[in-house]
Order: sequence, then C-alpha cells, then structure tokens
Amino acid sequence: MINKLIDKIKKTGAPIVVGLDPTMKFVPEHIQKKAFAEYGETTKGAAEAVWQYNKTIVDHIYDLIPAVKPQIAMYEQFGIEGMIAFQKTVEYCKQKDLVVIADVKRGDIGSTSEAYAVGHLGQVKVGNTMCRGFDEDFVTVNPYLGSDGVKPFIKVCQEEKKGIFVLVKTSNPSSGEMQDRIIRDDKADRPLYEIVGEQVAAWGAECMGDSYSYVGAVVGATYPEQGKILREIMPKAFILVPGYGAQGGKGADLVHFFNEDGLGAIINSSRGIIAAYQQEQYAKYGEENFADASRAAVLAMKEDIAQALSSRN
Amino acid sequence: MINKLIDKIKKTGAPIVVGLDPTMKFVPEHIQKKAFAEYGETTKGAAEAVWQYNKTIVDHIYDLIPAVKPQIAMYEQFGIEGMIAFQKTVEYCKQKDLVVIADVKRGDIGSTSEAYAVGHLGQVKVGNTMCRGFDEDFVTVNPYLGSDGVKPFIKVCQEEKKGIFVLVKTSNPSSGEMQDRIIRDDKADRPLYEIVGEQVAAWGAECMGDSYSYVGAVVGATYPEQGKILREIMPKAFILVPGYGAQGGKGADLVHFFNEDGLGAIINSSRGIIAAYQQEQYAKYGEENFADASRAAVLAMKEDIAQALSSRN
Repeated sequence: MINKLIDKIKKTGAPIVVGLDPTMKFVPEHIQKKAFAEYGETTKGAAEAVWQYNKTIVDHIYDLIPAVKPQIAMYEQFGIEGMIAFQKTVEYCKQKDLVVIADVKRGDIGSTSEAYAVGHLGQVKVGNTMCRGFDEDFVTVNPYLGSDGVKPFIKVCQEEKKGIFVLVKTSNPSSGEMQDRIIRDDKADRPLYEIVGEQVAAWGAECMGDSYSYVGAVVGATYPEQGKILREIMPKAFILVPGYGAQGGKGADLVHFFNEDGLGAIINSSRGIIAAYQQEQYAKYGEENFADASRAAVLAMKEDIAQALSSRN
Repeated sequence: MINKLIDKIKKTGAPIVVGLDPTMKFVPEHIQKKAFAEYGETTKGAAEAVWQYNKTIVDHIYDLIPAVKPQIAMYEQFGIEGMIAFQKTVEYCKQKDLVVIADVKRGDIGSTSEAYAVGHLGQVKVGNTMCRGFDEDFVTVNPYLGSDGVKPFIKVCQEEKKGIFVLVKTSNPSSGEMQDRIIRDDKADRPLYEIVGEQVAAWGAECMGDSYSYVGAVVGATYPEQGKILREIMPKAFILVPGYGAQGGKGADLVHFFNEDGLGAIINSSRGIIAAYQQEQYAKYGEENFADASRAAVLAMKEDIAQALSSRN
C-alpha cells in the first residue's frame, strides 16, 4: 500500500492528502436541511449530512489527489450513526481508488492493539470465517505504550501490505509538553520525539515496501525544524504532515519533510480544503458550489507545494 | 460520577472493575453456535455472541461490583456490528446502575479531542438539538499530545460531572520504552510517567468531586513501585489499575495504589473474571455455567484485595 501511495503521488504530482474531518459547522445548510428533513435533528440526520457532504467533495477532487484522511473522531462524535457514515466514506473513497489513511490514533497493550489492527487493517476470525471490519489502508498509531502497542499493527501490515503512521511530533501547540522533553541518555541527551523517531526507523526496517517502509510517522507542519531532524533520523519513513493551512503551516515550511527524491512526505489539509467555500478567497463559488471551492483549494495547495519544492533546489 | 463511583465502591466493599473485553476465544461454544445459527459466521454473528456473553456475565455479577470497563477495541475489531454490541453493553450496564468506564484510550489535537469527548461523554449539537453518542461515564485518555488533547475532555467532564483516567504508567511489558525515560529537569531528573502524573494532579485540581478528582490515572498493577510514587504525586486522583490476575499483578502488589482512607484505587480484572470458567480452579462450573464461574472469581478477587488491604495496617 505504501507502493500504491507513492505511485499515486507520482501520477497526480500531488503529495497531498485531504482530511475528511466534517464538523456540522462546515456542512452547507442545504445539505443539513435535506438530511434533517429525512431523519430529523438526530445523530442519523447528522451522519447523513456528513456522508452527503463527503461524497460530493470526493466526487469533485478524487482525480487530483492520491489519498484521503478521514478523522474518525469527527464521526465517532455522532455515535453508531457516525461510525456508519465513516465506513461509507472509507468504502466510497476506496471505490474511487483513493488510498484511505484513517486517522484513528489508536494504541494499547499488545492483545488490544491486535484487536484494533485487525479491526481497521486486517481480518478477524469468526467461527471458521475471516471477516473484515473497517478495512482502511493506513491508520495512525499512538506510541505512548511502546513496542507492545505498535508491533501488533506491524504484524497485520506485513500480512496485508498495509501501513501505519506513528505519532512522533504532533502539530498542536502543546505537543511539546511530552514530546519535547529532553531524555537523559548515555549517547546524547535528546528530545522524546527523536527517541520515538528512532523507534519508527527501527520498526520500519521490519516492514519495507520497495523504497519506503510501511511504517511512517506523523510530524506536524507547524514544527519545520523538528521535521528536518526527523527526516534524517527516519530516512525510509514516509511522513504524514498535518497542520498545513488552517493550523498555520505553509508550503515553504514543508520542504525539509521531503527527501531529495521529492518523496517521503504527504501533506494533509482538512478544513482548508473541505471548508474552502467559507474562506474569503473562495467565497465566489458560493455555499451551493462548496465542492468546486474545494477543488480550487486542492489545485492551489498543489501549486504551493510544487513551488516550494522546486525553489529549494 | 466520581462521587457515584466512590459510593458504589463503599456499598459493595469492592474496589473492583470488571473488564468486559470479549474475544471470541472466551465466548462459550453454545453462545457462538446460537449466534452463528441466527446471523452466520459474520461480524453480526460475532457481535451477537459477544453481546449475549456480556449480558449473561453482567446479570450474574452486577450486584457485587461498582463498575465495568468495556475495552472498545474488542468491539471495534468487528467493525460497525461490534460497535453496536459495545453500545448495547454500555446501555445495559447503565440500566444495571453500574458505572461504565469505557477503555477507549483516545486523545488527539484540541478540536478532535473535543469530538471524542462529546461523542463518548457529552452531547453533540445537531441543528438545534443536543444529541448523545456513546454516553459512557468515564473514558481513558492518552496524554502523548499534551494539555490540548486532554483539556477538551476535562471541559466536558465539568459540564457532565463525568470523568477520565489518563494513561500514566501502563501495565504492559514495554510501557517503559517511553514512560520510564528519564527527563532532564532543573528541579530533579525524573521519569516521564512522573511528569505525566504531575500533569494529572494539575488537570485534576480544575475538576474536583467531593473527595477525589474527576481526573484519574491509569497505573498498571504490574508496576507496584511506580504506583507507590504516583500515589503520592497524585493524592486526589483515583487510580484505575489494570494488570491484576492474568497480567501478573497480585493483591499484595496493590496496597500502595490506595490511600490511607482505603480509597483512591479501583482494580481491573478482565479475562480473570469473564473467562474464569477456562481456569482450572473454576473448571467445576463447566462451560455452560461460565457466568457462575465469573461470579466466584469476583468474590475471590474481592477477598484477595480486602485481605491485602487489611494486612497492610
């Protein structure tokens, strides 16, 4: 799946992943009204609105991008109905041949991580039958529990040729509270995120695709200096980079997340794309044509990143 | 809800939470057969088996214990159908007046943690209507993203009078890979779990019940020495202690997780209770009477902990 992701990045020329993180305040009123008319102001109504919103956006941008990243929390907030909308979104994106990176940030002790791995990437045994749960292509994983919590995902990745992105240095303002703490070490004192990065490189060596590992890392666009260091620590890890756009990251901040081959990173934008119609520069499309605004925003993002990459040489 | 948990611990005399972590290998064959006859060897069949298994156990033990802890991964592995079984289990346990601690280990950047908090503990706005998603009483939270990732949960806890348990020192063998790393600090070098414990105490001060905070901590029974230190660092935090029984923790290891008032900790056992019938000492009950074995195992655990607590004085 890492090979497929890289192929699709090359074909589209867009190292971009669109975050499908719908909150109700992004969903245009006409979609909400229609869904509520059918199902009421219920979690089912919300889930229907979210699904229709996602579907329209995907229909308008799928040919431009290699991958999508649905953030499961935005579905989980609506309970079971939200989870059904999540699954419909995952299935629809796969039908459109998009690589689906499910942003689930799961991670637990061994046997429990195994259940998450199986439910999201693999197959679960029911009687004598193997069944699939959510069946995404990649998931994000939290490393706080150490190797026990990560290795069950890697085992499933090896079996299924799928992948994970391990949280290393997250994009949020307080990420440093734990991740930047300086660890005392005989070799050299260094921040926790470097230790985690070293682990990612070690875990990834067990699970290689053609040129990159199935084990990638999450490093926020908002921390370009740390991205530069982590790029060197994990040369074979693809870096999933959230925080572009709305969170403050810019194209020029991103160049050091990429390797010399122009690969090695995929930049996420969520509300910058899916709620583009709410931004002044795309207001001309109007709320009805929200997905055209999303398409324009993808094209602008693609251009921004391409320019940043070409001007680094 | 922390007050209710404490009241129920006092009434039952059992600082015990039963982990409802069903895997198919625990579910007795007669339950599996019946579920598969109705729904086939599908995720729906598995979810039905899990639900019937849970319900029978809860019916046999609910009067002895204050709380249950369903591990959501064990449901999520079966996709949507599993999540429905999770929700049915949560609702049923609440009907039985059990406190429900959902072991979800969520945690993300601010707006995303807010969605998790709302979906699991609070209410989400749909149009002009407030709706509830999974609606548990407590959830477990991963601290790797720092305060941004935790505070949205605390906000919902304040509104709803519900609670969280933050992962501090987890019970698994590799928990030390990150959590035991020694942090360089002007005051005193100390392990990461102590730093997280200090944060739990600070977060918890913003959200107090009558005698304990709504913000608790997870510390594994398998690390009694660390438990002793963390007990002092977080005097007002309830400690959720996994790892008793099957993971190797014993009653005598647990005394230092409690405060002098005999409160402050709640000990989790999962397979030791729900799969008790598979242990030699409870084999006499037979697979058909698996829930009687679970009841006997709860009584034995209660006795073990009571003895350990009384002999510490």
